[in-house]
Amino acid sequence: MIRFENDYTEGCHRRILQRLSETNDEQTPGYGTDEHCEKARDYIRKACDAANADVHFLVGGTQTNTTIIASILRPHQGAVSAITGHIAGHETGAIEATGHKVLTLPSDDGKIQAEQVKELYDAHWDDVTHEHMVQPGLVYISHPTENGTTYSKAELEALSKVCREAGLPLMMDGARLGYGLAAKDSDLSLADIARLCDVFYIGGTKIGAMFGEAVVITNDSLKKDFRYMIKQKGGLLAKGRLLGIQFETLFEDGLYYEISNHADEMAMMIREAFVERGFSLRYDSTTNQQFPILPNDVLLELGKKYSFSLWEKFDSTHSVVRFCTSWATKKENVEMLLEDIRAL
Amino acid sequence: MIRFENDYTEGCHRRILQRLSETNDEQTPGYGTDEHCEKARDYIRKACDAANADVHFLVGGTQTNTTIIASILRPHQGAVSAITGHIAGHETGAIEATGHKVLTLPSDDGKIQAEQVKELYDAHWDDVTHEHMVQPGLVYISHPTENGTTYSKAELEALSKVCREAGLPLMMDGARLGYGLAAKDSDLSLADIARLCDVFYIGGTKIGAMFGEAVVITNDSLKKDFRYMIKQKGGLLAKGRLLGIQFETLFEDGLYYEISNHADEMAMMIREAFVERGFSLRYDSTTNQQFPILPNDVLLELGKKYSFSLWEKFDSTHSVVRFCTSWATKKENVEMLLEDIRAL
Amino acid sequence: MIRFENDYTEGCHRRILQRLSETNDEQTPGYGTDEHCEKARDYIRKACDAANADVHFLVGGTQTNTTIIASILRPHQGAVSAITGHIAGHETGAIEATGHKVLTLPSDDGKIQAEQVKELYDAHWDDVTHEHMVQPGLVYISHPTENGTTYSKAELEALSKVCREAGLPLMMDGARLGYGLAAKDSDLSLADIARLCDVFYIGGTKIGAMFGEAVVITNDSLKKDFRYMIKQKGGLLAKGRLLGIQFETLFEDGLYYEISNHADEMAMMIREAFVERGFSLRYDSTTNQQFPILPNDVLLELGKKYSFSLWEKFDSTHSVVRFCTSWATKKENVEMLLEDIRAL
Amino acid sequence: MIRFENDYTEGCHRRILQRLSETNDEQTPGYGTDEHCEKARDYIRKACDAANADVHFLVGGTQTNTTIIASILRPHQGAVSAITGHIAGHETGAIEATGHKVLTLPSDDGKIQAEQVKELYDAHWDDVTHEHMVQPGLVYISHPTENGTTYSKAELEALSKVCREAGLPLMMDGARLGYGLAAKDSDLSLADIARLCDVFYIGGTKIGAMFGEAVVITNDSLKKDFRYMIKQKGGLLAKGRLLGIQFETLFEDGLYYEISNHADEMAMMIREAFVERGFSLRYDSTTNQQFPILPNDVLLELGKKYSFSLWEKFDSTHSVVRFCTSWATKKENVEMLLEDIRAL
Repeated sequence: MIRFENDYTEGCHRRILQRLSETNDEQTPGYGTDEHCEKARDYIRKACDAANADVHFLVGGTQTNTTIIASILRPHQGAVSAITGHIAGHETGAIEATGHKVLTLPSDDGKIQAEQVKELYDAHWDDVTHEHMVQPGLVYISHPTENGTTYSKAELEALSKVCREAGLPLMMDGARLGYGLAAKDSDLSLADIARLCDVFYIGGTKIGAMFGEAVVITNDSLKKDFRYMIKQKGGLLAKGRLLGIQFETLFEDGLYYEISNHADEMAMMIREAFVERGFSLRYDSTTNQQFPILPNDVLLELGKKYSFSLWEKFDSTHSVVRFCTSWATKKENVEMLLEDIRAL
Repeated sequence: MIRFENDYTEGCHRRILQRLSETNDEQTPGYGTDEHCEKARDYIRKACDAANADVHFLVGGTQTNTTIIASILRPHQGAVSAITGHIAGHETGAIEATGHKVLTLPSDDGKIQAEQVKELYDAHWDDVTHEHMVQPGLVYISHPTENGTTYSKAELEALSKVCREAGLPLMMDGARLGYGLAAKDSDLSLADIARLCDVFYIGGTKIGAMFGEAVVITNDSLKKDFRYMIKQKGGLLAKGRLLGIQFETLFEDGLYYEISNHADEMAMMIREAFVERGFSLRYDSTTNQQFPILPNDVLLELGKKYSFSLWEKFDSTHSVVRFCTSWATKKENVEMLLEDIRAL
Repeated sequence: MIRFENDYTEGCHRRILQRLSETNDEQTPGYGTDEHCEKARDYIRKACDAANADVHFLVGGTQTNTTIIASILRPHQGAVSAITGHIAGHETGAIEATGHKVLTLPSDDGKIQAEQVKELYDAHWDDVTHEHMVQPGLVYISHPTENGTTYSKAELEALSKVCREAGLPLMMDGARLGYGLAAKDSDLSLADIARLCDVFYIGGTKIGAMFGEAVVITNDSLKKDFRYMIKQKGGLLAKGRLLGIQFETLFEDGLYYEISNHADEMAMMIREAFVERGFSLRYDSTTNQQFPILPNDVLLELGKKYSFSLWEKFDSTHSVVRFCTSWATKKENVEMLLEDIRAL
Repeated sequence: MIRFENDYTEGCHRRILQRLSETNDEQTPGYGTDEHCEKARDYIRKACDAANADVHFLVGGTQTNTTIIASILRPHQGAVSAITGHIAGHETGAIEATGHKVLTLPSDDGKIQAEQVKELYDAHWDDVTHEHMVQPGLVYISHPTENGTTYSKAELEALSKVCREAGLPLMMDGARLGYGLAAKDSDLSLADIARLCDVFYIGGTKIGAMFGEAVVITNDSLKKDFRYMIKQKGGLLAKGRLLGIQFETLFEDGLYYEISNHADEMAMMIREAFVERGFSLRYDSTTNQQFPILPNDVLLELGKKYSFSLWEKFDSTHSVVRFCTSWATKKENVEMLLEDIRAL
């Protein structure tokens, strides 16, 4: 079985393994106060062109979303998100478990737009009984989204503007950020994101690391006491150096971008093969997740050799499926898949 | 600087690194559903002589304590713990953040005794206004404790009996469990613990692994839906195999015990050296943490070469400090320390 | 200004005031352990034909919903509700503040149907990644709904059946229960509700009392420790007798039904007047809330003399408004309104 | 049975009943936006010499404490309180249920002193691992305390100074505030309290009202969005006017002080009788709660005719009991008690 079911099917990039081995016997202080973490922070600040940003390392995505959101909101506030957002549907109510409602906006492609946020915000404050409703307290977006789509610079600037006018921190879930940055049609840089968002994170788990998410806080008012929050929410790794070493490796000389590019290239090859073969795509993704709409018999045929995710039923004879590539995807496997697609 | 400040100053045991490298390219499903996790679960069930136990892998201790406790308690219930318990003082209120009070019992050595639990339980129910107070909902102990001390089999049996009569699940924090099992004067086996506790965990982070805690649930009534809880509390690692591989390595042929023994032996050498030199010990620990009471000038002298933790002020001229050994402690470093102690 | 804006514009029924005055100097124990509460519980059990039910008195609706839901759900579970349900939109996230997501179902009239619940439940368990999603843990309905509509006995029986098969407690918000029971076209009795729901409450605040909601728990498995929950959630009134006295007065000889009937009759007169005058109704309500769709100029005209709620925009020239009657609504005021409607 | 067991054994002051009756048919808007609430707010602001204070009305004490504390703290912060504080032991973990630890300070008389707060605060920040501990986020005191004792102006000034220097809001639980203000030896006025605390409340439930606590927020930074918090925590009474009317009556011409004085006078008579008869007092209370230490046979003898609370065991033959007076205590009952004490 060749797996395209998600982007965490392998261990980690070999250079990370090697670096973990090289540093294994070093004795370091715990909880992210070691020199590897410091170096990694510096690399990331530089990459973000954000010299004053606070950088923290956490273990996984749900934990990171929860920690950031719980840190920002007051008890009567909620997080605005696309209905398809990860926090809205796939984190077992982790946000609610910290006391906060996820205020959902409709979305067909995983993105939300500035006008939607403005409308929701205005509607809240226009309602004379707004005290009986959850107050919007921050805006959560993913880049790329759960559907592989990306925000353009213009879209993010518009969102950022609306958020700042409303006093709503803008938070970006970057669990797959590298794949978004590497997308051929994307005009967004890390520096743009650092400038336009108040807090975001750079995903490692799905992009070369064993695990790890690097939170970047650029808005000064959100920095205070964040380490308390990490500890309380279970994200303060005793051997914090493991996170530092991984992000050091990913960011010291561009490995993060390089492997992100690879994943996107592999994905675009798969996309094109499906399109050429006459299949439609559910979302217009230029990142590492591709969502062809396949006849159910084709799906069964491909399923004998490849694993992929069943995304949703499309109609009585078709389904949307997801093929994921990653930093680890082998070109020969993709080429085999392409052949099999063409042969359908 | 030679570090004895805690038991997580190095990476992980070399055999784990090697195994991570060997398995790195395997493609596995996520979230702990892979074969490595399955194997590790089997090894652990066998080691616990608990064929029906549920075994789950989480990343760190605070997360594990929080997930277990939040899973068990109803909203009006609290966790009974020694005042010195980790959940009572060193997890930034993680338990309270899930809505539950930690009900503390006095303890001088980190342990609590059966009679204390019984007394607290009876006092609650004897109070006519008990509905105005937090109801004891489970009992939390650590083995070894924060102070390096261990429960005897008789003590644990007494605790277990009181808890079962009261309907209070007994939970053991085993972040350093190996060091407790390996203690020369301990008569407690993993099987005893599995039989006497309702849920406990086997610490990996401090005993050879990069990270990871293996939760063992033996009480059937506590098993339901535990994976939801892990996910919600941020502990469901995407690449769950990393946990499986580590615990597989630690438990397939006794590595866990072997390295625990080593750490305890190193600790006892340090203990004896301090005692021979005429220093008292704050706690009677036979595990990997040792707590000599040192004159402040001695402390400064040793501090030039070794790092250790300042535990508490003892009197105006003495302090309690903690020396930690671990699976990674090098014998030559301990011997150097012994010489330096003798030379004081 | 004559107020039809809600059903809590006046104090309380005169007989309650009188009773409060008569009993004022009695000395009673606190927290609902007095004889008035005992009597009121007995009246309510009898009215519900539920001799074994537990009956508790709380102060207000949000508090009551929160207490019941938090008492029932485990942390990874959510409350299924119509998207229009009070808990979903008008309690400032009180349910989320206790850690639970509200899982919403679409509804045009405020009701949800058995098939919807079954579908949502099956969809959850059919999803292979259900552990990443909030598990449905109970079903919340209102009778009458926020839109004035009522469940038929057949509908409630179907809901109850689905819930019991799925192991989901069925909870009814009865903040306006009297007005639902009194609805001319309703075939549901209190005894039916007690038989078909697992827990529900009988609203006092909006039906004759100063304040107060009587929770009736018929499912034995939901009874345990409920008083702890009331206390924790701030609903255990020190002078609990005030609640007992009020419900005693309402239920000792049918006052609750009598005044509910009055309110519904007044509401139906208003409904008919609007319909006769040619206006449509947004919801087919036979209870004390009526929702005519009015031209905006009519709305402004009526607004000079009467207060009512602006419910929602209908189109560029029409709005939905809500007229509420209550136990306190004066017939002469309704008649004046009818004349003014006819004169439009 | 003549009840001295607590200060909520009767209904409410007759003038309040009368006012509720007079205003019963008025139609008012809901949720505390009516004119009675406005008037009551004005009276209270004036009584506090705090023209800019925000005044809110809630129903009961646990609810009020929870709402205030949850509104102020960030998730990693806790409320500093005497170990004997109401929030620490008698609210079924209501504070923890909102996610916050209660950080307790030892106290023999129910009070905490400025130095204790300073010490705890400094100890937190001096600890290098403070991020692993709950951060002190506010200071909670009661006046009078659970033990009937009161703060002097000098004590409150010292506390206020320490709190302001540390940036810790100082909150006063005033469930029995009137009885504290009326204490013969108290030099604290409402204006002092308003000046020295950041938020406090004026208890109605135990002092003449049926129910109700008036929250006064003098610190501007704590005012924002407080009504959302009241709603979420279940304290926003639909018929908010009931609270307004009660506090209007209590504060329009000094009724609150007058009835507080009465209660304290009755209590001091009881105190003196016990002392004259040779019994010791557990606490030096000059307010409405008195805590004599009685031989157990005396306790049984008095218990035939009077109800009072068993506070704690003193020794094998003595117990501490609590006698409470209130606004409603009848002088003839107290005189009867005095005679019976003298006759012991």
